[in-house]
Amino acid sequence: MIIDSHAHVMLPPERQIMLMAEAKVDRTVLFSSMVHPEITNDIKMFEEELNKLYDILNGIKDPLNERIHAIEELAQIIKENPEKYIGFGSIPFGLSYSENLKWIEKHIIANGFRGIGELTPGAGQVLQMESLFCASQEVGNLPLWVHTFFPLKAEDIKELLTLVKRYPTVPTIVGHMGGTHWLDTLKAIKELPNAYLDLSATYTAIAPSFAIKEFPERTLFSSDAPYSSPLIAKTIIEQIITDPYVLDRVLGENIANLLQL
Amino acid sequence: MIIDSHAHVMLPPERQIMLMAEAKVDRTVLFSSMVHPEITNDIKMFEEELNKLYDILNGIKDPLNERIHAIEELAQIIKENPEKYIGFGSIPFGLSYSENLKWIEKHIIANGFRGIGELTPGAGQVLQMESLFCASQEVGNLPLWVHTFFPLKAEDIKELLTLVKRYPTVPTIVGHMGGTHWLDTLKAIKELPNAYLDLSATYTAIAPSFAIKEFPERTLFSSDAPYSSPLIAKTIIEQIITDPYVLDRVLGENIANLLQL
Repeated sequence: MIIDSHAHVMLPPERQIMLMAEAKVDRTVLFSSMVHPEITNDIKMFEEELNKLYDILNGIKDPLNERIHAIEELAQIIKENPEKYIGFGSIPFGLSYSENLKWIEKHIIANGFRGIGELTPGAGQVLQMESLFCASQEVGNLPLWVHTFFPLKAEDIKELLTLVKRYPTVPTIVGHMGGTHWLDTLKAIKELPNAYLDLSATYTAIAPSFAIKEFPERTLFSSDAPYSSPLIAKTIIEQIITDPYVLDRVLGENIANLLQL
Repeated sequence: MIIDSHAHVMLPPERQIMLMAEAKVDRTVLFSSMVHPEITNDIKMFEEELNKLYDILNGIKDPLNERIHAIEELAQIIKENPEKYIGFGSIPFGLSYSENLKWIEKHIIANGFRGIGELTPGAGQVLQMESLFCASQEVGNLPLWVHTFFPLKAEDIKELLTLVKRYPTVPTIVGHMGGTHWLDTLKAIKELPNAYLDLSATYTAIAPSFAIKEFPERTLFSSDAPYSSPLIAKTIIEQIITDPYVLDRVLGENIANLLQL
Protein backbone atom coordinates (compact mmCIF):
# COMPACT_ATOMS: atom_id res chain seq x y z
CA MET A 1 0.00 0.00 0.00
CA ILE A 2 1.30 3.46 -0.95
CA ILE A 3 0.84 5.99 1.86
CA ASP A 4 1.66 9.68 1.62
CA SER A 5 2.72 10.20 5.23
CA HIS A 6 2.25 13.98 5.33
CA ALA A 7 -0.03 16.29 3.37
CA HIS A 8 -2.17 19.25 4.36
CA VAL A 9 -5.84 19.75 3.59
CA MET A 10 -6.11 21.22 0.10
CA LEU A 11 -9.10 23.04 -1.32
CA PRO A 12 -11.23 22.00 -3.04
CA PRO A 13 -11.01 18.46 -1.54
CA GLU A 14 -11.56 16.87 -4.98
CA ARG A 15 -8.20 18.24 -6.05
CA GLN A 16 -6.45 16.35 -3.27
CA ILE A 17 -8.15 13.10 -4.28
CA MET A 18 -7.18 13.72 -7.89
CA LEU A 19 -3.52 14.32 -7.01
CA MET A 20 -3.51 11.10 -4.95
CA ALA A 21 -4.99 9.15 -7.86
CA GLU A 22 -2.51 10.61 -10.31
CA ALA A 23 0.38 9.43 -8.09
CA LYS A 24 -1.34 6.08 -7.29
CA VAL A 25 -1.33 6.91 -3.59
CA ASP A 26 -3.77 4.71 -1.66
CA ARG A 27 -3.92 6.62 1.62
CA THR A 28 -2.73 9.96 2.98
CA VAL A 29 -1.90 11.02 6.51
CA LEU A 30 -3.72 14.34 6.47
CA PHE A 31 -2.91 17.43 8.52
CA SER A 32 -5.01 20.53 8.95
CA SER A 33 -3.97 23.86 7.44
CA MET A 34 -4.77 27.38 8.52
CA VAL A 35 -3.47 28.73 5.22
CA HIS A 36 -4.32 27.71 1.67
CA PRO A 37 -1.55 28.70 -0.74
CA GLU A 38 -3.00 26.30 -3.33
CA ILE A 39 -5.92 28.63 -4.00
CA THR A 40 -3.84 31.77 -4.51
CA ASN A 41 -3.49 32.98 -8.08
CA ASP A 42 -0.71 35.50 -7.96
CA ILE A 43 2.39 36.41 -6.00
CA LYS A 44 0.63 39.07 -3.96
CA MET A 45 -2.14 36.76 -2.75
CA PHE A 46 0.39 34.01 -2.16
CA GLU A 47 2.60 36.29 -0.10
CA GLU A 48 -0.31 37.23 2.14
CA GLU A 49 -0.98 33.53 2.80
CA LEU A 50 2.72 32.87 3.32
CA ASN A 51 3.10 35.71 5.77
CA LYS A 52 0.20 34.29 7.75
CA LEU A 53 2.06 30.96 7.79
CA TYR A 54 5.37 32.55 8.82
CA ASP A 55 3.63 34.39 11.64
CA ILE A 56 2.44 31.01 12.88
CA LEU A 57 5.84 29.32 12.30
CA ASN A 58 7.59 32.15 14.12
CA GLY A 59 5.15 31.99 17.00
CA ILE A 60 3.94 35.56 16.35
CA LYS A 61 0.41 34.44 15.69
CA ASP A 62 -1.47 31.51 17.15
CA PRO A 63 -5.09 32.09 16.35
CA LEU A 64 -7.15 29.69 18.39
CA ASN A 65 -10.37 29.99 16.43
CA GLU A 66 -8.69 29.46 13.09
CA ARG A 67 -6.91 26.40 14.48
CA ILE A 68 -10.14 24.87 15.75
CA HIS A 69 -11.85 25.64 12.46
CA ALA A 70 -9.01 23.94 10.53
CA ILE A 71 -9.28 20.86 12.74
CA GLU A 72 -13.04 20.67 12.14
CA GLU A 73 -12.42 21.01 8.41
CA LEU A 74 -9.90 18.14 8.60
CA ALA A 75 -12.27 15.91 10.59
CA GLN A 76 -15.04 16.57 8.07
CA ILE A 77 -12.85 15.74 5.08
CA ILE A 78 -11.70 12.48 6.68
CA LYS A 79 -15.31 11.59 7.50
CA GLU A 80 -16.21 11.90 3.84
CA ASN A 81 -13.41 9.53 2.77
CA PRO A 82 -12.44 7.45 5.81
CA GLU A 83 -10.75 4.78 3.68
CA LYS A 84 -8.45 7.36 2.12
CA TYR A 85 -7.29 9.43 5.07
CA ILE A 86 -5.67 9.11 8.49
CA GLY A 87 -5.67 12.32 10.55
CA PHE A 88 -3.04 14.10 12.62
CA GLY A 89 -4.40 16.89 14.78
CA SER A 90 -2.74 20.21 15.47
CA ILE A 91 -2.27 21.77 18.90
CA PRO A 92 -1.44 25.32 20.02
CA PHE A 93 2.20 25.86 20.92
CA GLY A 94 3.40 26.32 24.50
CA LEU A 95 0.56 24.72 26.48
CA SER A 96 1.15 23.33 29.98
CA TYR A 97 1.04 19.58 30.63
CA SER A 98 -2.59 19.62 31.73
CA GLU A 99 -3.66 21.99 28.94
CA ASN A 100 -1.97 19.67 26.44
CA LEU A 101 -3.80 16.66 27.88
CA LYS A 102 -7.13 18.46 27.73
CA TRP A 103 -6.59 19.56 24.11
CA ILE A 104 -5.44 16.08 23.05
CA GLU A 105 -8.54 14.49 24.56
CA LYS A 106 -10.95 17.02 23.06
CA HIS A 107 -9.47 17.74 19.63
CA ILE A 108 -7.26 14.77 18.78
CA ILE A 109 -8.48 11.56 20.38
CA ALA A 110 -12.17 12.52 20.10
CA ASN A 111 -11.68 13.01 16.36
CA GLY A 112 -9.95 9.64 15.96
CA PHE A 113 -6.70 11.24 14.87
CA ARG A 114 -3.58 9.08 15.12
CA GLY A 115 -0.91 11.64 15.89
CA ILE A 116 -0.14 15.25 16.75
CA GLY A 117 1.21 17.87 14.36
CA GLU A 118 2.36 19.68 12.43
CA LEU A 119 4.26 21.23 15.35
CA THR A 120 6.02 24.43 14.34
CA PRO A 121 8.19 25.77 17.14
CA GLY A 122 9.92 29.06 16.50
CA ALA A 123 13.69 29.31 16.80
CA GLY A 124 14.67 29.09 20.49
CA GLN A 125 11.28 27.65 21.54
CA VAL A 126 11.79 23.92 21.12
CA LEU A 127 12.26 23.04 24.78
CA GLN A 128 8.80 24.45 25.53
CA MET A 129 7.54 21.24 23.89
CA GLU A 130 8.62 19.05 26.82
CA SER A 131 5.17 19.14 28.40
CA LEU A 132 3.71 17.95 25.09
CA PHE A 133 6.12 14.99 24.91
CA CYS A 134 5.08 14.19 28.46
CA ALA A 135 1.37 14.42 27.58
CA SER A 136 1.82 12.24 24.51
CA GLN A 137 3.49 9.59 26.66
CA GLU A 138 0.60 9.79 29.09
CA VAL A 139 -2.08 9.13 26.44
CA GLY A 140 -0.28 6.10 24.97
CA ASN A 141 2.55 7.63 22.93
CA LEU A 142 0.79 9.49 20.16
CA PRO A 143 3.40 10.24 17.45
CA LEU A 144 4.53 13.87 17.16
CA TRP A 145 5.29 15.47 13.78
CA VAL A 146 7.72 18.40 14.08
CA HIS A 147 8.69 20.87 11.31
CA THR A 148 12.51 21.19 11.28
CA PHE A 149 13.19 23.31 8.19
CA PHE A 150 13.55 27.12 8.14
CA PRO A 151 13.16 29.07 10.48
CA LEU A 152 14.60 26.41 12.83
CA LYS A 153 18.36 26.49 13.37
CA ALA A 154 20.88 23.71 14.04
CA GLU A 155 20.68 24.41 17.77
CA ASP A 156 16.89 24.01 17.76
CA ILE A 157 17.13 20.62 16.07
CA LYS A 158 19.68 19.51 18.67
CA GLU A 159 17.26 20.53 21.41
CA LEU A 160 14.45 18.63 19.74
CA LEU A 161 16.59 15.51 19.66
CA THR A 162 17.33 15.82 23.39
CA LEU A 163 13.55 15.62 23.94
CA VAL A 164 13.33 12.64 21.58
CA LYS A 165 16.03 10.95 23.67
CA ARG A 166 14.37 11.85 26.97
CA TYR A 167 11.01 10.36 25.81
CA PRO A 168 12.07 7.12 24.10
CA THR A 169 8.53 5.76 23.88
CA VAL A 170 7.17 8.78 21.98
CA PRO A 171 7.67 8.34 18.23
CA THR A 172 8.82 11.65 16.75
CA ILE A 173 8.74 12.37 13.04
CA VAL A 174 11.47 14.84 12.14
CA GLY A 175 9.69 16.84 9.42
CA HIS A 176 11.83 17.66 6.35
CA MET A 177 14.67 15.68 8.01
CA GLY A 178 16.40 18.77 9.41
CA GLY A 179 16.33 20.91 6.25
CA THR A 180 19.79 22.28 5.50
CA HIS A 181 21.00 20.47 8.65
CA TRP A 182 20.01 17.06 7.29
CA LEU A 183 23.47 15.50 7.53
CA ASP A 184 23.89 16.35 11.22
CA THR A 185 20.35 15.13 11.82
CA LEU A 186 21.13 11.77 10.18
CA LYS A 187 24.18 11.33 12.37
CA ALA A 188 22.33 12.34 15.53
CA ILE A 189 19.36 9.97 15.24
CA LYS A 190 21.48 6.80 14.95
CA GLU A 191 21.03 6.17 18.65
CA LEU A 192 17.41 7.38 18.78
CA PRO A 193 15.21 4.53 17.55
CA ASN A 194 12.02 6.54 18.18
CA ALA A 195 13.06 9.22 15.65
CA TYR A 196 11.62 8.94 12.13
CA LEU A 197 12.60 11.00 9.09
CA ASP A 198 10.06 12.73 6.89
CA LEU A 199 11.52 13.02 3.38
CA SER A 200 9.62 16.06 2.10
CA ALA A 201 10.94 19.53 1.20
CA THR A 202 14.47 18.36 0.52
CA TYR A 203 16.33 20.65 -1.85
CA THR A 204 18.72 17.90 -2.95
CA ALA A 205 17.96 14.26 -3.76
CA ILE A 206 21.21 13.31 -2.05
CA ALA A 207 19.64 13.96 1.37
CA PRO A 208 16.83 11.36 1.11
CA SER A 209 19.25 8.96 -0.64
CA PHE A 210 21.54 8.78 2.36
CA ALA A 211 18.66 8.94 4.82
CA ILE A 212 17.08 5.85 3.27
CA LYS A 213 20.42 4.05 3.04
CA GLU A 214 21.05 4.62 6.74
CA PHE A 215 17.50 4.17 8.00
CA PRO A 216 15.44 2.07 5.57
CA GLU A 217 12.86 1.35 8.26
CA ARG A 218 12.57 4.88 9.63
CA THR A 219 12.22 7.00 6.50
CA LEU A 220 8.81 8.12 5.33
CA PHE A 221 7.67 9.18 1.87
CA SER A 222 5.56 12.34 1.98
CA SER A 223 4.45 15.11 -0.34
CA ASP A 224 3.87 17.95 2.11
CA ALA A 225 1.14 18.92 -0.38
CA PRO A 226 0.34 21.63 -1.36
CA TYR A 227 4.02 22.55 -1.02
CA SER A 228 4.87 19.72 -3.37
CA SER A 229 2.66 17.10 -5.07
CA PRO A 230 2.37 13.36 -4.36
CA LEU A 231 3.60 12.50 -7.86
CA ILE A 232 6.71 14.69 -7.59
CA ALA A 233 7.55 13.34 -4.13
CA LYS A 234 6.94 9.72 -5.18
CA THR A 235 9.05 10.11 -8.32
CA ILE A 236 11.96 11.30 -6.20
CA ILE A 237 11.70 8.22 -3.96
CA GLU A 238 11.33 5.86 -6.93
CA GLN A 239 14.38 7.44 -8.56
CA ILE A 240 16.66 7.00 -5.58
CA ILE A 241 15.64 3.53 -4.32
CA THR A 242 16.62 0.45 -6.32
CA ASP A 243 15.77 -2.26 -3.76
CA PRO A 244 12.05 -3.19 -4.06
CA TYR A 245 11.86 -4.24 -0.40
CA VAL A 246 13.14 -0.85 0.75
CA LEU A 247 10.88 0.93 -1.74
CA ASP A 248 7.80 -0.77 -0.27
CA ARG A 249 8.88 0.15 3.22
CA VAL A 250 9.55 3.82 2.49
CA LEU A 251 6.46 4.31 0.31
CA GLY A 252 4.08 2.93 2.89
CA GLU A 253 5.03 0.10 5.24
CA ASN A 254 7.12 2.20 7.59
CA ILE A 255 4.34 4.65 8.32
CA ALA A 256 1.78 1.81 8.42
CA ASN A 257 3.86 0.04 11.10
CA LEU A 258 4.38 3.25 13.02
CA LEU A 259 0.66 4.07 13.08
CA GLN A 260 -0.40 0.40 13.37
CA LEU A 261 -2.65 0.67 10.33
CA MET B 1 14.58 20.07 -27.78
CA ILE B 2 14.91 19.28 -24.07
CA ILE B 3 17.91 20.97 -22.47
CA ASP B 4 19.05 20.49 -18.89
CA SER B 5 20.44 23.97 -18.32
CA HIS B 6 22.68 23.12 -15.36
CA ALA B 7 24.42 19.91 -14.34
CA HIS B 8 27.87 19.15 -13.06
CA VAL B 9 30.30 16.59 -14.45
CA MET B 10 29.42 13.21 -12.95
CA LEU B 11 31.68 10.21 -12.78
CA PRO B 12 31.76 7.90 -14.57
CA PRO B 13 30.62 9.92 -17.63
CA GLU B 14 28.46 7.04 -18.88
CA ARG B 15 26.25 7.49 -15.86
CA GLN B 16 25.50 11.10 -16.86
CA ILE B 17 24.58 10.00 -20.39
CA MET B 18 22.35 7.28 -18.95
CA LEU B 19 20.54 9.73 -16.65
CA MET B 20 19.98 12.10 -19.61
CA ALA B 21 18.58 9.23 -21.71
CA GLU B 22 16.30 8.12 -18.89
CA ALA B 23 14.82 11.65 -18.67
CA LYS B 24 14.77 12.12 -22.47
CA VAL B 25 17.08 15.11 -22.19
CA ASP B 26 18.71 15.96 -25.54
CA ARG B 27 21.45 18.29 -24.37
CA THR B 28 22.97 19.42 -21.08
CA VAL B 29 24.72 22.63 -20.13
CA LEU B 30 27.62 21.07 -18.27
CA PHE B 31 29.63 22.63 -15.47
CA SER B 32 32.87 21.40 -13.96
CA SER B 33 33.01 20.01 -10.44
CA MET B 34 35.87 19.88 -7.99
CA VAL B 35 33.91 17.48 -5.78
CA HIS B 36 32.16 14.24 -6.68
CA PRO B 37 29.48 13.36 -4.12
CA GLU B 38 28.00 10.90 -6.63
CA ILE B 39 30.84 8.45 -6.06
CA THR B 40 30.68 8.46 -2.27
CA ASN B 41 29.19 5.37 -0.64
CA ASP B 42 28.54 6.38 2.91
CA ILE B 43 27.83 9.42 5.06
CA LYS B 44 31.46 9.79 6.18
CA MET B 45 32.88 9.89 2.65
CA PHE B 46 30.05 12.15 1.55
CA GLU B 47 30.67 14.55 4.40
CA GLU B 48 34.33 14.86 3.45
CA GLU B 49 33.32 15.76 -0.12
CA LEU B 50 30.67 18.15 1.16
CA ASN B 51 33.07 19.90 3.50
CA LYS B 52 35.41 20.42 0.55
CA LEU B 53 32.50 21.98 -1.32
CA TYR B 54 31.48 24.20 1.62
CA ASP B 55 35.06 25.39 1.97
CA ILE B 56 34.86 26.49 -1.65
CA LEU B 57 31.35 28.00 -1.26
CA ASN B 58 32.47 29.88 1.83
CA GLY B 59 35.58 31.14 0.13
CA ILE B 60 37.85 29.32 2.61
CA LYS B 61 39.44 27.21 -0.08
CA ASP B 62 40.03 28.09 -3.74
CA PRO B 63 42.40 25.47 -5.02
CA LEU B 64 43.74 26.64 -8.36
CA ASN B 65 45.15 23.34 -9.57
CA GLU B 66 41.98 21.43 -8.75
CA ARG B 67 39.94 24.07 -10.58
CA ILE B 68 42.09 23.83 -13.70
CA HIS B 69 41.98 20.04 -13.55
CA ALA B 70 38.16 20.13 -13.30
CA ILE B 71 37.98 22.46 -16.31
CA GLU B 72 40.18 20.12 -18.36
CA GLU B 73 38.01 17.19 -17.31
CA LEU B 74 34.93 19.13 -18.47
CA ALA B 75 36.52 20.07 -21.82
CA GLN B 76 37.46 16.43 -22.42
CA ILE B 77 33.98 15.13 -21.63
CA ILE B 78 32.41 17.67 -24.00
CA LYS B 79 34.91 16.75 -26.72
CA GLU B 80 33.78 13.13 -26.51
CA ASN B 81 30.10 14.05 -26.92
CA PRO B 82 29.96 17.49 -28.53
CA GLU B 83 26.37 17.01 -29.69
CA LYS B 84 25.23 16.34 -26.12
CA TYR B 85 26.97 19.05 -24.12
CA ILE B 86 27.45 22.81 -23.95
CA GLY B 87 30.09 23.96 -21.45
CA PHE B 88 30.19 26.69 -18.81
CA GLY B 89 33.65 27.35 -17.40
CA SER B 90 34.49 28.11 -13.80
CA ILE B 91 36.69 30.97 -12.64
CA PRO B 92 38.43 31.67 -9.32
CA PHE B 93 36.62 34.12 -7.09
CA GLY B 94 37.83 37.67 -6.48
CA LEU B 95 40.04 38.26 -9.53
CA SER B 96 40.74 41.78 -10.79
CA TYR B 97 39.31 43.00 -14.11
CA SER B 98 42.46 42.11 -16.09
CA GLU B 99 42.93 38.77 -14.32
CA ASN B 100 39.32 37.92 -15.11
CA LEU B 101 39.85 38.81 -18.78
CA LYS B 102 43.00 36.69 -18.97
CA TRP B 103 41.29 33.68 -17.34
CA ILE B 104 38.23 34.00 -19.56
CA GLU B 105 40.39 34.04 -22.71
CA LYS B 106 42.53 31.10 -21.63
CA HIS B 107 40.11 28.79 -19.85
CA ILE B 108 36.65 29.71 -21.13
CA ILE B 109 36.74 31.05 -24.67
CA ALA B 110 39.66 28.82 -25.72
CA ASN B 111 37.63 25.79 -24.63
CA GLY B 112 34.57 26.93 -26.56
CA PHE B 113 32.50 27.32 -23.38
CA ARG B 114 29.37 29.47 -23.64
CA GLY B 115 29.20 30.98 -20.18
CA ILE B 116 30.87 31.40 -16.82
CA GLY B 117 30.00 29.56 -13.63
CA GLU B 118 29.09 28.15 -11.25
CA LEU B 119 30.03 31.27 -9.30
CA THR B 120 29.85 30.68 -5.57
CA PRO B 121 30.43 33.89 -3.64
CA GLY B 122 30.53 33.58 0.13
CA ALA B 123 28.17 35.65 2.27
CA GLY B 124 29.26 39.30 2.15
CA GLN B 125 31.46 38.81 -0.93
CA VAL B 126 29.04 39.38 -3.79
CA LEU B 127 30.16 42.90 -4.71
CA GLN B 128 33.66 41.56 -5.40
CA MET B 129 32.15 40.16 -8.58
CA GLU B 130 31.78 43.58 -10.21
CA SER B 131 35.08 43.20 -12.12
CA LEU B 132 33.80 39.91 -13.48
CA PHE B 133 30.55 41.50 -14.72
CA CYS B 134 32.71 44.13 -16.36
CA ALA B 135 34.97 41.53 -17.98
CA SER B 136 31.98 39.54 -19.25
CA GLN B 137 30.60 42.68 -20.87
CA GLU B 138 33.99 43.29 -22.50
CA VAL B 139 34.16 39.82 -24.11
CA GLY B 140 30.65 40.04 -25.60
CA ASN B 141 28.39 39.41 -22.62
CA LEU B 142 29.09 35.84 -21.62
CA PRO B 143 26.27 34.69 -19.32
CA LEU B 144 27.12 34.32 -15.65
CA TRP B 145 25.65 31.54 -13.49
CA VAL B 146 25.55 32.43 -9.79
CA HIS B 147 24.68 30.12 -6.87
CA THR B 148 22.14 31.90 -4.64
CA PHE B 149 21.11 29.21 -2.13
CA PHE B 150 22.70 28.65 1.30
CA PRO B 151 25.17 30.05 2.48
CA LEU B 152 24.04 33.28 0.72
CA LYS B 153 21.73 35.57 2.66
CA ALA B 154 18.93 37.90 1.52
CA GLU B 155 21.34 40.83 1.60
CA ASP B 156 23.81 39.04 -0.71
CA ILE B 157 21.09 38.36 -3.26
CA LYS B 158 20.10 42.03 -3.17
CA GLU B 159 23.70 42.99 -3.88
CA LEU B 160 23.86 40.53 -6.74
CA LEU B 161 20.78 42.10 -8.27
CA THR B 162 22.33 45.57 -8.07
CA LEU B 163 25.16 44.21 -10.26
CA VAL B 164 22.63 42.66 -12.63
CA LYS B 165 20.99 46.07 -12.90
CA ARG B 166 24.29 47.89 -13.39
CA TYR B 167 25.31 45.54 -16.26
CA PRO B 168 22.08 45.21 -18.25
CA THR B 169 23.76 43.51 -21.23
CA VAL B 170 25.23 40.68 -19.13
CA PRO B 171 22.74 37.82 -18.81
CA THR B 172 22.80 36.51 -15.25
CA ILE B 173 21.31 33.18 -14.25
CA VAL B 174 20.16 33.31 -10.64
CA GLY B 175 21.01 29.76 -9.56
CA HIS B 176 18.33 28.03 -7.43
CA MET B 177 16.22 31.21 -7.82
CA GLY B 178 17.26 32.68 -4.47
CA GLY B 179 16.75 29.57 -2.30
CA THR B 180 14.62 30.39 0.72
CA HIS B 181 14.49 34.00 -0.55
CA TRP B 182 12.78 32.99 -3.80
CA LEU B 183 9.74 35.20 -3.36
CA ASP B 184 11.75 38.39 -2.84
CA THR B 185 13.93 37.36 -5.78
CA LEU B 186 10.88 37.00 -8.03
CA LYS B 187 9.65 40.44 -7.08
CA ALA B 188 13.07 42.02 -7.54
CA ILE B 189 13.82 40.75 -11.06
CA LYS B 190 10.62 42.13 -12.60
CA GLU B 191 12.54 45.19 -13.80
CA LEU B 192 15.73 43.27 -14.66
CA PRO B 193 15.23 41.65 -18.09
CA ASN B 194 18.79 40.24 -18.10
CA ALA B 195 18.08 38.12 -14.99
CA TYR B 196 17.13 34.47 -15.57
CA LEU B 197 15.90 31.99 -12.98
CA ASP B 198 17.40 28.54 -12.58
CA LEU B 199 14.73 26.22 -11.19
CA SER B 200 16.91 23.63 -9.43
CA ALA B 201 17.25 22.87 -5.71
CA THR B 202 13.85 24.26 -4.79
CA TYR B 203 12.45 22.74 -1.62
CA THR B 204 8.86 23.53 -2.60
CA ALA B 205 7.15 23.11 -5.97
CA ILE B 206 5.30 26.36 -5.30
CA ALA B 207 8.48 28.36 -5.96
CA PRO B 208 9.03 27.23 -9.57
CA SER B 209 5.24 27.39 -10.17
CA PHE B 210 5.10 31.10 -9.48
CA ALA B 211 8.46 31.74 -11.12
CA ILE B 212 7.23 30.22 -14.38
CA LYS B 213 3.88 32.00 -14.14
CA GLU B 214 5.63 35.37 -13.74
CA PHE B 215 8.54 34.76 -16.12
CA PRO B 216 7.67 32.08 -18.68
CA GLU B 217 10.51 33.21 -20.94
CA ARG B 218 13.17 33.58 -18.26
CA THR B 219 12.84 30.35 -16.27
CA LEU B 220 15.18 27.46 -16.95
CA PHE B 221 14.72 23.76 -16.23
CA SER B 222 17.82 22.23 -14.67
CA SER B 223 18.77 19.19 -12.62
CA ASP B 224 21.86 20.47 -10.81
CA ALA B 225 22.95 16.81 -11.10
CA PRO B 226 24.37 15.08 -9.09
CA TYR B 227 22.41 17.02 -6.44
CA SER B 228 19.20 15.99 -8.16
CA SER B 229 18.57 13.94 -11.30
CA PRO B 230 17.29 15.08 -14.72
CA LEU B 231 14.21 12.88 -14.41
CA ILE B 232 13.27 14.23 -10.98
CA ALA B 233 13.79 17.83 -12.10
CA LYS B 234 11.88 17.33 -15.35
CA THR B 235 8.99 15.62 -13.57
CA ILE B 236 8.63 18.65 -11.31
CA ILE B 237 8.43 20.98 -14.32
CA GLU B 238 5.99 18.72 -16.18
CA GLN B 239 3.81 18.56 -13.07
CA ILE B 240 3.53 22.29 -12.62
CA ILE B 241 3.16 23.51 -16.21
CA THR B 242 -0.07 22.88 -18.07
CA ASP B 243 0.50 25.11 -21.12
CA PRO B 244 2.49 23.19 -23.80
CA TYR B 245 3.98 26.42 -25.21
CA VAL B 246 5.37 27.39 -21.81
CA LEU B 247 6.55 23.82 -21.17
CA ASP B 248 8.62 23.87 -24.37
CA ARG B 249 10.11 27.19 -23.44
CA VAL B 250 11.09 26.22 -19.89
CA LEU B 251 12.37 22.75 -20.81
CA GLY B 252 14.67 24.01 -23.54
CA GLU B 253 13.82 27.01 -25.69
CA ASN B 254 14.60 29.65 -23.10
CA ILE B 255 18.15 28.44 -22.54
CA ALA B 256 18.59 27.79 -26.29
CA ASN B 257 17.64 31.42 -27.01
CA LEU B 258 19.85 32.72 -24.25
CA LEU B 259 22.90 30.79 -25.48
CA GLN B 260 21.96 31.18 -29.17
CA LEU B 261 22.11 27.43 -29.75
